[in-house]
Amino acid sequence: MATQNRAPVLTPQAEDFPRWYQDVLEKAEMADNGPVRGTMVIRPYAYGLWENMQREVDSRIKATGAENVYLPLFIPQSYLEREAEHVEGFSPELAVVTHAGGKELGEPVVVRPTSETVFGEMMAKWVQSHRDLPMRLNQWANVVRWELRPRLFLRTTEFLWQEGHTAHATEADASAYARTIHLDVYRDFLQNALAIPVLTGLKTPRERFAGAVTTMTCEAMMGDGKALQMATSHELGQNFARAFDIGFTDETGQVQTCWTTSWGSSTRMVGGLIMAHGDDQGLRIPPRVAPIQAAVIAVKDDPRTLQVAADLVAELERFGVRARLDDRTSQGFGRRATEWELKGVPLRVEVGPRDLEAGRVTVARRDSGEKTQEPLDTFAEEAPALLSRMHAALIDSSRARLAERTHDVATSEEAFEAAQTGFGRIAWSTLGEDGEADLNRRGVTVRC
Amino acid sequence: MATQNRAPVLTPQAEDFPRWYQDVLEKAEMADNGPVRGTMVIRPYAYGLWENMQREVDSRIKATGAENVYLPLFIPQSYLEREAEHVEGFSPELAVVTHAGGKELGEPVVVRPTSETVFGEMMAKWVQSHRDLPMRLNQWANVVRWELRPRLFLRTTEFLWQEGHTAHATEADASAYARTIHLDVYRDFLQNALAIPVLTGLKTPRERFAGAVTTMTCEAMMGDGKALQMATSHELGQNFARAFDIGFTDETGQVQTCWTTSWGSSTRMVGGLIMAHGDDQGLRIPPRVAPIQAAVIAVKDDPRTLQVAADLVAELERFGVRARLDDRTSQGFGRRATEWELKGVPLRVEVGPRDLEAGRVTVARRDSGEKTQEPLDTFAEEAPALLSRMHAALIDSSRARLAERTHDVATSEEAFEAAQTGFGRIAWSTLGEDGEADLNRRGVTVRC
Ligand SMILES: [Zn+2]
Ligand SMILES: [Zn+2]
Repeated sequence: MATQNRAPVLTPQAEDFPRWYQDVLEKAEMADNGPVRGTMVIRPYAYGLWENMQREVDSRIKATGAENVYLPLFIPQSYLEREAEHVEGFSPELAVVTHAGGKELGEPVVVRPTSETVFGEMMAKWVQSHRDLPMRLNQWANVVRWELRPRLFLRTTEFLWQEGHTAHATEADASAYARTIHLDVYRDFLQNALAIPVLTGLKTPRERFAGAVTTMTCEAMMGDGKALQMATSHELGQNFARAFDIGFTDETGQVQTCWTTSWGSSTRMVGGLIMAHGDDQGLRIPPRVAPIQAAVIAVKDDPRTLQVAADLVAELERFGVRARLDDRTSQGFGRRATEWELKGVPLRVEVGPRDLEAGRVTVARRDSGEKTQEPLDTFAEEAPALLSRMHAALIDSSRARLAERTHDVATSEEAFEAAQTGFGRIAWSTLGEDGEADLNRRGVTVRC
Repeated sequence: MATQNRAPVLTPQAEDFPRWYQDVLEKAEMADNGPVRGTMVIRPYAYGLWENMQREVDSRIKATGAENVYLPLFIPQSYLEREAEHVEGFSPELAVVTHAGGKELGEPVVVRPTSETVFGEMMAKWVQSHRDLPMRLNQWANVVRWELRPRLFLRTTEFLWQEGHTAHATEADASAYARTIHLDVYRDFLQNALAIPVLTGLKTPRERFAGAVTTMTCEAMMGDGKALQMATSHELGQNFARAFDIGFTDETGQVQTCWTTSWGSSTRMVGGLIMAHGDDQGLRIPPRVAPIQAAVIAVKDDPRTLQVAADLVAELERFGVRARLDDRTSQGFGRRATEWELKGVPLRVEVGPRDLEAGRVTVARRDSGEKTQEPLDTFAEEAPALLSRMHAALIDSSRARLAERTHDVATSEEAFEAAQTGFGRIAWSTLGEDGEADLNRRGVTVRC
């Protein structure tokens, strides 16, 4: 176990979980508050993580046949349902541009809270014939929803996300596609890239997305036993297509209404990853999305040590491991080791003069804290398999926590009790809408 | 040569080049106007192209040691130099949010026209010691500059771009880094990925970026002989660091001011690519960034043809070629061939029953229009080399045009003449600021 002597830099999770979360974002140099309240600056280390997450989600989305597009940031007032007399009439979550080009605009424009309405308008134009179907579109973009109680990554006024919108000729095709996104994109990504086990299921009518016939969700358990919704997929039936007039001419020349889906995930998943895996020593980044998978520390300012450490980084990269050299020998070793631990780098590899004499390196695993000696000449080759075992260990321990803190319950009262430390599982036929309303009043939500 | 009989779908370039540009964007399904004037919808085909371009630029930026960050869309009014009494006092290019959270904001916020000021504030905070230098940051994001005369990709109210900002301990380091970006990122990308030869050089004081000591530019010649600025890199001396108080403590404990650079490129390069390579038949997408490098057309609705075409797509993909199957046999062959030609797909591969009997396919090169018969069993393996030769041919013909339409001139009058059909090259010591002012009055700009 890693047992350096040092003052704790983070508030312990058990003492104050939200405070621990804020501490780790700051100390691990993940994010800062932006100058406008509720906005966020994503620092290089967290943005590198997001880029890896985005690549994993994007490749899964493309594998389902969807293509990316880019729609405008600005949406005309007329696209929004409520025709506001004055801009104060807009929904409080909206940011409204009233002045541009050096003067007041004739019609205010809204900064997109989602691109849903523009997707609707464009798909109505682009879908004409059955030959255009299915139309499967996705967008990576920033969106804005004014936040009065912001929390970095979890609830910010501006956030980064992807939103997918698809149109299909039949209900069956739309339904099957929404399920593919739910399981083969989101659940697969969360489990196989982020090492986060998820509960999948349907939202209750109360929690369902407005306009959706079915909302499928991936819910994860955080380190404090609370739930976080990681991604949702909606079957919209023909509601959305009717509202935007998305229709097609079928093989027989008949005009038909499309069946549509929509689905999304966001930088909130970065917050979820932090809260699902982090511990009192800092982040634990799952290996498959880690910006740095192995930090190689040259312990002493000695030419041979520095050379061997640099060579090891090159060797690790040759085996496909994202490695980083730490040659900051003017700073103490303990301080540097703590920094990599805080940043949750999966492998910390220490190269010191004594190790070299013995032809070995010291390897610390961030998941378990375990430290072992490994032969210098074979370590790089073994590292990819070690990272895979660490992924498996991370999801196994998350699964164990989920199982331990989930209780089968029979009444709304028992469900309330279970929610104090984790999840309660209850049949919807037993709980029902009244039970849900009762739990909601007491601060407990029904997730799926 | 491709000589299908058909009505021209595009305005010929020689007749009206800007109109040709609009036509090709529409017919090749590249982009639409957004619902708010000046904004743009980037359709899947163009967005796939942009993703490939972005990947090429991004990997070159990262190879220089820079890391990506994300800064907020919204900037407080106070960050902007001019303290505007009322929002009409803002620069006309700015879009201003005055209402959010359901009420009027105490201080209006501006939608970023660039993130320069936020980079300045954050770098002042993040740079403390010489150990933090060089700090090399880049951002991919949308920015907004209100446009009264928008043109898709070239001048839009919202556009996508990257902006890099770096801080260095010495002038020499900043200068060398700006040059690396200029040559190893931008020039290399433009020539080796986009097949566009560029003239590189320094902007005149009149054309230089405000606050820059030196502005380096990559200028390309479009199909109509006009110049388009593709990317710029600025040495900012200590001006920017002084304005934002970006300083560091050196090895001796002295506080010093940083030397900074900034540099950017945008979706305007998509417009440049279209205008540099397109012809009267449509786009010609350079192979290395083409979303589809080979379209394999099953000519007839015949099971063997369809199977061979599908197998060929798989085989091409195995050799790293981005291939797409066109099995829309209910549509005429000529119409489909025209579509791929319009979209500028580098290779059009026709698989028909007669070809199959002879064990061959017909291959049409989009760069030259040349059509050849190729053996079915070796074509996929040869395709990557063929695409490389096409890249070389594209840049060679662009170089030839650039040479042919660039004239050495000795006077401002001759420079004006040369600019009517291409570029004029004149020594700055001969032209001078007065000559530049004279040319500007007559609608000619000095590029580098
Ligand atoms: Zn006003
Ligand atoms: Zn008002």
